[in-house]
Amino acid sequence: MTDVLAIEEPLELRVDADPAFTLSLMMRTPGHDRELVTGWLWAEGLLDAVDALELNPDTPNVIALRGDVGRLRGAARASFTSAACGVCGSGSVERLSIRAEPVIWTPPPLTPQLILDLPERLRAAQTGFNATGGLHAAGLFSAGGELLCAYEDVGRHNATDKVVGWAALRGELPLSDRILVTSSRAGFEIVQKAALAGVAVVVTVGAASSLAADTAAALNLSLLGFVRGERFNVYAGGERVQKIE
Amino acid sequence: MTDVLAIEEPLELRVDADPAFTLSLMMRTPGHDRELVTGWLWAEGLLDAVDALELNPDTPNVIALRGDVGRLRGAARASFTSAACGVCGSGSVERLSIRAEPVIWTPPPLTPQLILDLPERLRAAQTGFNATGGLHAAGLFSAGGELLCAYEDVGRHNATDKVVGWAALRGELPLSDRILVTSSRAGFEIVQKAALAGVAVVVTVGAASSLAADTAAALNLSLLGFVRGERFNVYAGGERVQKIE
Repeated sequence: MTDVLAIEEPLELRVDADPAFTLSLMMRTPGHDRELVTGWLWAEGLLDAVDALELNPDTPNVIALRGDVGRLRGAARASFTSAACGVCGSGSVERLSIRAEPVIWTPPPLTPQLILDLPERLRAAQTGFNATGGLHAAGLFSAGGELLCAYEDVGRHNATDKVVGWAALRGELPLSDRILVTSSRAGFEIVQKAALAGVAVVVTVGAASSLAADTAAALNLSLLGFVRGERFNVYAGGERVQKIE
Repeated sequence: MTDVLAIEEPLELRVDADPAFTLSLMMRTPGHDRELVTGWLWAEGLLDAVDALELNPDTPNVIALRGDVGRLRGAARASFTSAACGVCGSGSVERLSIRAEPVIWTPPPLTPQLILDLPERLRAAQTGFNATGGLHAAGLFSAGGELLCAYEDVGRHNATDKVVGWAALRGELPLSDRILVTSSRAGFEIVQKAALAGVAVVVTVGAASSLAADTAAALNLSLLGFVRGERFNVYAGGERVQKIE
């Protein structure tokens, strides 16, 4: 077999380099770990507790977090609740609303043609997918449709974390007037990560789940999905899409 | 919008009905929670610590686990490690090998045509996907290609957990001489769940990751992917596929 496979390896986040305090174990495609971990910490509400990420070339699948050790260890202890990002029974959307700032969108409504073009523009930046067929992608676009960054990963949530981490490392959060495009389906977690980063418009190639659509509507996000050929679905926030006369 | 959306809701597993001891919070498509939780507990190595699942129609997104409270609470405390299923740095495959029994496969090698037919047979059982386009599916087949069960979920890991749970509830584990078919890509976790259930052949519509292929090879599983049209990839375990003369 000569196929190129998408690389998947585990990544362990340790608090203060202590193997007894694992904050997270995730499966990911290596290569942009700093962006990935930064974006993940942002979504967990822990980025401001971290002063430095310590990457070690000798142990590429372990990253030590320096910073507010007490808070990070507390998060490691309360891990399951934190891993689910405040989702608990029926109160999930309400809890998320408390953590997420209101999104800001000032440009005019997007044209349907621009929305239809975005997945192809993301795909053009997906070098890994073209080779392997096994990677999810997420990209950030300006309101004019310019690609600002794109990342791939075996996990679709990871690809979005990398985009948010890229922005966080450049001091560009919240992502007002930006469009997040993902190659996959939209579940609750994608909408949650977008909302926490301040993204107002999410475009996905795949379908959205019921909770993703409900959450987007509750948080005033536009969720556009199933972008195929000449059509797409507006799951929430249609006011940011130009009406065809 | 008149589209039918795939239902996604959170499910909380509580130890002994105590809200302070949440064993897991997962996003899932409701409808087969008993199978889902049973399969998930199996993969976590916790099924034998549970005597009963207490489903309550008044709180459909909360399930209480009765059983060995000490062990379940311990698992809740050590949650992150358990959530990652023993994945830790470079030792992941070795650790999994310790937990998984050797797989058993006694039928003759599968014909390529049977392998090519399996995704379509699974799709025919996917009532939800046909309506929503937003669900992953997993199905269990006999070595002769007969569909034994099929489940859908917004999460591909959940769909596989439901299949394993179905088998566990019928006392049919380990799944010797069975084929697991999934509609999605194969990452490490799908191979891990298959191995822990004793499945010897995994067929996926999507591509496999590097770690999925390595793990399948190390555990003697056959991993066949990218089943499209008239061809598929053999990522591991080709001896269970009939050679074309």
